[in-house]
Amino acid sequence: MQWYVVASVLTILTSSQGILTTLSQSNGGYKYDYATVPFLAEVFKLIVSSVLLWRECQRSPSPKITTEWRSVRLYPIPSVIYLIHNNVQFATLTYVDTSTYQIMGNLKIVTTAILFRLFLRRKLSNLQWMAIVLLAIGTTTSQVKGCGETSCESLFSSPIQGYMLGALSACLSALAGVYTEFLMKKNNDSLYWQNIQLYTFGAIFNMAKLVMDDFRSGFENGPWWQRLFNGYTMTTWMVVLNLGSTGLLVSWLMKYADNIVKVYSTSMAMLLTMVMSVFLFHFKPTLQLFLGIFVCMMSLHMYFAPPTMLVDLPLTAKASPESLVEVSVDRRTSS
Amino acid sequence: MQWYVVASVLTILTSSQGILTTLSQSNGGYKYDYATVPFLAEVFKLIVSSVLLWRECQRSPSPKITTEWRSVRLYPIPSVIYLIHNNVQFATLTYVDTSTYQIMGNLKIVTTAILFRLFLRRKLSNLQWMAIVLLAIGTTTSQVKGCGETSCESLFSSPIQGYMLGALSACLSALAGVYTEFLMKKNNDSLYWQNIQLYTFGAIFNMAKLVMDDFRSGFENGPWWQRLFNGYTMTTWMVVLNLGSTGLLVSWLMKYADNIVKVYSTSMAMLLTMVMSVFLFHFKPTLQLFLGIFVCMMSLHMYFAPPTMLVDLPLTAKASPESLVEVSVDRRTSS
Repeated sequence: MQWYVVASVLTILTSSQGILTTLSQSNGGYKYDYATVPFLAEVFKLIVSSVLLWRECQRSPSPKITTEWRSVRLYPIPSVIYLIHNNVQFATLTYVDTSTYQIMGNLKIVTTAILFRLFLRRKLSNLQWMAIVLLAIGTTTSQVKGCGETSCESLFSSPIQGYMLGALSACLSALAGVYTEFLMKKNNDSLYWQNIQLYTFGAIFNMAKLVMDDFRSGFENGPWWQRLFNGYTMTTWMVVLNLGSTGLLVSWLMKYADNIVKVYSTSMAMLLTMVMSVFLFHFKPTLQLFLGIFVCMMSLHMYFAPPTMLVDLPLTAKASPESLVEVSVDRRTSS
Repeated sequence: MQWYVVASVLTILTSSQGILTTLSQSNGGYKYDYATVPFLAEVFKLIVSSVLLWRECQRSPSPKITTEWRSVRLYPIPSVIYLIHNNVQFATLTYVDTSTYQIMGNLKIVTTAILFRLFLRRKLSNLQWMAIVLLAIGTTTSQVKGCGETSCESLFSSPIQGYMLGALSACLSALAGVYTEFLMKKNNDSLYWQNIQLYTFGAIFNMAKLVMDDFRSGFENGPWWQRLFNGYTMTTWMVVLNLGSTGLLVSWLMKYADNIVKVYSTSMAMLLTMVMSVFLFHFKPTLQLFLGIFVCMMSLHMYFAPPTMLVDLPLTAKASPESLVEVSVDRRTSS
């Protein structure tokens, strides 16, 4: 399968996630416990990956499966990073409002590219760096509050702690992504076996969160497993299946493509959600939404188009000094 | 002189123009007749160009001066285009408000590039086209009305005639620029001689406008020459000198650089004016201003940086099939 097909499907599913989550609300609130959704999504991904691994084992050659503790112990780390990230996110929101937080979230695009360069030692051309910055600018532009909107963002007036925690949040989110890519690519283990390890720890951490919530509320609604499906509707199940599917696609991209592809996919999904909201929820489109979409499209093309398609290098410039030397040396030896 | 030095000075002077014009107002209005400013600027440019041509004639080799009617008759055309443009602009403003007109004005960037390609047959790489579009998006982004501003633009609600006239206005403005470049570059006449021809017709057309205004008002304030300097202050004179100087620099760029350089220069000037207004007139900076500036900076770098600085072409890709064939043929003949 080609990475851009997977990335396109991921874009559509990710943008549906926002729409479905909105549709699953009734009277602006959730009738079900939202914390159960990521837990069930982890369980769904675990089941799918187990079935796929079992099928893979039936065929020859059998897939590569590393079960050493040295390798397995690395798999809970993404969950730990996400746990820290969630707490930092919570702390950030005590200093800044949600719209400022959303704007700062675009910083994640740039931090992912930086960590991608530093930790995975992947080189990007100057043009690709510019494309990354433009993607962050484009997504931010599309989120700029429209003229006449009721609540004006207090973007430049939050305490400094808010901005620092926002930056930390962007770094942690990027770190989780880059670390997962390292994990998926470090050996040629079966993707499904790697998934099983990731999602087992994911399910455990999500379950721990449900237990913690129970302790915090003093078990007034009973233990989490007794009210796991309370208030679930068809739409809620679709939210779960959708979240699980996007997770599986992200895993695939981490192994066979990279974090930058994922970043583009989720950014485009954000824009797609906004466009779909215009039709579904009668949102009034703003000029900045169109401008942001244009900038992101340019960025996409700049990042992924082959360089020779973008610039017309004159023939004389194409031959670098080194290659000229090489040719002349070559000729001397042959004559 | 290097073109980027001239372009930088043009940027600073153009952005000063907006500031000076605002400073020359008293109680939000003009105490002088604003139509006299471009006329006097034309006269100023004419005097400067005449002095410079005279000095050039003292030296050897004497400058090239074409005085045939066949050549001279081409010089009023830019003035004619500007005259039509001003009337179209006036008609557009009866359909759309000024902020929508300002936003549509950015279309000029793209139309200039298109006419530059079509009429002057100058090729731009895909990346340069993208840079042009990004420049237009960046300047538009910076002009998006901030959240909470009093008058909300009715950007998508003007009659269709407004948009069509706005597009026509952008085409005429681009045509004037591209035609002037053609005029300045069509032969190696002295720049100052070309200027004298341009500005003589410019002065005549501006004078005609003053006469027309007199007829329209029924000479109630007397003929224009009797009240030419009425209400002029030191600042008004600076507005005249500044407008004249920017005109001279634009002429220089048309001959020794091109329209795209001018477009970048004036776009950057627009952003500089907005930044200076934040300090001088205590304008509240918006997030979109910063985003727009960033996009324009990226665009500037994309357009003017050497392609080899932007993309890292692998050595194998550098040698195109043609150059490989060339080398092998070359080798065969030499052995």
